[in-house]
Amino acid sequence: MARIVMKFGGTSVADLDRIRNVAQRVKREVEAGNEVAVVVSAMAGATNQLVKWCSDLSPLHDAREYDVVVATGEQVTIGLLAIALQTIGVDARSWQGWQIPIVTDAAHGKARVESIDGTLLIERMREGQVPVIAGFQGLEPGRNRITTLGRGGSDLSAVAVAAAVKADRCDIYTDVDGVYTTDPRIVPRAKKLERISYEEMLELASVGAKVLQTRSVELAMKQRVRVQVLSSFEDKPGSLVVDEDEIVEQPIVSGIAYSRDEAKVTLRRVPDRPGIAAHVFGPMAAANLNVDMIVQNIGADGTTDMTFTVGRADLPRAKDLLEKQRADIGYEALVTDAEVAKISVVGIGMRTHAGVASTMFKALADKGINIQVISTSEIKVSVLIPVDYTELAVRALHTAYGLDGPEAPTRNEG
Amino acid sequence: MARIVMKFGGTSVADLDRIRNVAQRVKREVEAGNEVAVVVSAMAGATNQLVKWCSDLSPLHDAREYDVVVATGEQVTIGLLAIALQTIGVDARSWQGWQIPIVTDAAHGKARVESIDGTLLIERMREGQVPVIAGFQGLEPGRNRITTLGRGGSDLSAVAVAAAVKADRCDIYTDVDGVYTTDPRIVPRAKKLERISYEEMLELASVGAKVLQTRSVELAMKQRVRVQVLSSFEDKPGSLVVDEDEIVEQPIVSGIAYSRDEAKVTLRRVPDRPGIAAHVFGPMAAANLNVDMIVQNIGADGTTDMTFTVGRADLPRAKDLLEKQRADIGYEALVTDAEVAKISVVGIGMRTHAGVASTMFKALADKGINIQVISTSEIKVSVLIPVDYTELAVRALHTAYGLDGPEAPTRNEG
Repeated sequence: MARIVMKFGGTSVADLDRIRNVAQRVKREVEAGNEVAVVVSAMAGATNQLVKWCSDLSPLHDAREYDVVVATGEQVTIGLLAIALQTIGVDARSWQGWQIPIVTDAAHGKARVESIDGTLLIERMREGQVPVIAGFQGLEPGRNRITTLGRGGSDLSAVAVAAAVKADRCDIYTDVDGVYTTDPRIVPRAKKLERISYEEMLELASVGAKVLQTRSVELAMKQRVRVQVLSSFEDKPGSLVVDEDEIVEQPIVSGIAYSRDEAKVTLRRVPDRPGIAAHVFGPMAAANLNVDMIVQNIGADGTTDMTFTVGRADLPRAKDLLEKQRADIGYEALVTDAEVAKISVVGIGMRTHAGVASTMFKALADKGINIQVISTSEIKVSVLIPVDYTELAVRALHTAYGLDGPEAPTRNEG
Repeated sequence: MARIVMKFGGTSVADLDRIRNVAQRVKREVEAGNEVAVVVSAMAGATNQLVKWCSDLSPLHDAREYDVVVATGEQVTIGLLAIALQTIGVDARSWQGWQIPIVTDAAHGKARVESIDGTLLIERMREGQVPVIAGFQGLEPGRNRITTLGRGGSDLSAVAVAAAVKADRCDIYTDVDGVYTTDPRIVPRAKKLERISYEEMLELASVGAKVLQTRSVELAMKQRVRVQVLSSFEDKPGSLVVDEDEIVEQPIVSGIAYSRDEAKVTLRRVPDRPGIAAHVFGPMAAANLNVDMIVQNIGADGTTDMTFTVGRADLPRAKDLLEKQRADIGYEALVTDAEVAKISVVGIGMRTHAGVASTMFKALADKGINIQVISTSEIKVSVLIPVDYTELAVRALHTAYGLDGPEAPTRNEG
């Protein structure tokens, strides 16, 4: 017997048939002798409609009222799923964020979970009842008002609930059937990973493998919640995201990620004096512009070239800001390039193995791909390359690190 | 300065434009120096969709989960209206039933309001904020679960809130602009009543004038809440439902109501012995069959003919039940007729005036309309006639009691 939190996203509960299907899945876990709690999102499309109404009334709407409106999406789903479960003989009851309560801070629209009292939920699960919990929402207790956690927050709810009820596992049902060594649309021979560490998942999530929301992986890591990613539509095991101690055979490289969402900015011939980096990046941080990769080469003439990446959507704002700061910073030229892709090689085995980066550089060189920027972390090597070479680079690296599976796996393209 | 509760139904908040329109109306009351609270229904159509989902999943769904689902309709509206009000510079905040709380009993799907704590609402109104309150919903405090008051319950919410905040008036905005002496679709010269007593409104509501829900009129009468019925779409005074002491010039007859929702049942040659009525009506009450008009004529031979009306939709069940009880009751024949209409003349002035009934009988006789059953109460005379004569009878009585206005009033046909 295990205690399991099952989480189903919007496409898994998009209509009554799918809700009935989810109920059957839950029933199977219950009949296997497990204690089960379920966390659900709004029916696909529902949240978008609710958000649109708020925006149409006022682009600058009160976030507290926005939360009142959008939280209804999940409320509808929990009631319907509870009915669907009862109809097939499973004892179930719905729980809204304020009823548990899932206590959050007061940052309406993007609240952070502060605490969840699992007592009542555990009590009900022990009695054989399935709590059906609204994802995405919480309660700001000071003013007794509904909060929401921001888009994709249902994954976060599920992990937080799993921690609160001390679940053995948090199963995230989604439209892919697990975490792959890379995007199978680019590399058909990508393999599903049976196990992956939190740290790797975090790097993969933040560099473009959109299986799990970054904040929910962070929380799982912090609270040591074992997370399984699996398919809503097929009945087979998924990928388990766990502590690295649980991974017996640690591969050097677990996966190849890519992102086309960044743009490169270069400041040419910046005077090479102490504090110049703070001078460049301070105003950008103040303007809420996230900077990712940063490299700086010292030239011979007392100047330096400084290159970094920003979110592609932020490029116009970044350019504008830097042009205004030109005299202040004292650079000679501002060069930007949105036609870049970031390719990352991720693996906890890197910590103890040398040569991972050089394998990467060689594989790319062999295909004639020029590397523009390099940055490394403990478990990741990232390079910036021309965007047109994205697929070629991903495939070359997948092969170079021996990740190719024997053949194209059968999978569900969500 | 007055304290006013404004209530807007589903058609008044059917889309964003109408919600903006409601916001303007509220703003005008605020700018006139009043303290205002608003009670709203779900956007027209929303509740039907939510109810259908529950019914499709299971005709016998859990009423507690049904309430979770359908209560979202009002929750959406309060958030949107609060945003719309803020956008035009009116300080507003939404309130769900559980936040106030509006405490109800545990009869999910048709709960009764037990108490409303008006303290917080009054506090906010004094500070100049407009509470935007979800109609139709409440909280069952024992289990901390959402309840709903049953269809049309938003009127009830509005009256209950008005009582709780000691409002000077509860304005019910609807798709008609007031209470008329009769249905203006039948009598174009029907007049809008400036004032009508609770008792009269109650008789008119229960006999087919569907302007206000019966339970909300009962509550208004009990709590002495002055209710105004007025149009959402036009800007003019409506009809005031008040204590009869507030009506200076009491007309003998205030209005003519009709209902085509009843059917007549006659038991011929029932043995005339003590307790026979209980014998007939006991089992019907037990089967939840509402009986309305009852007349009994004693015959010469120790038998009696017993006639009564039931809801037309209940007629098959009533027939079935009575046929099974035939030996027990000992009647000779069961005759039913669904082709009947009930016409009622209502007025508090009747108490002190004779001749109201005979005016009615004469007016109908003059048109050759046969009266099948008569029943009277302190402020009402009702007759059952063949359904084809409904319009003719209503028009004849409207004229006979001098209710015709000078010409067809301009009005909004909802």
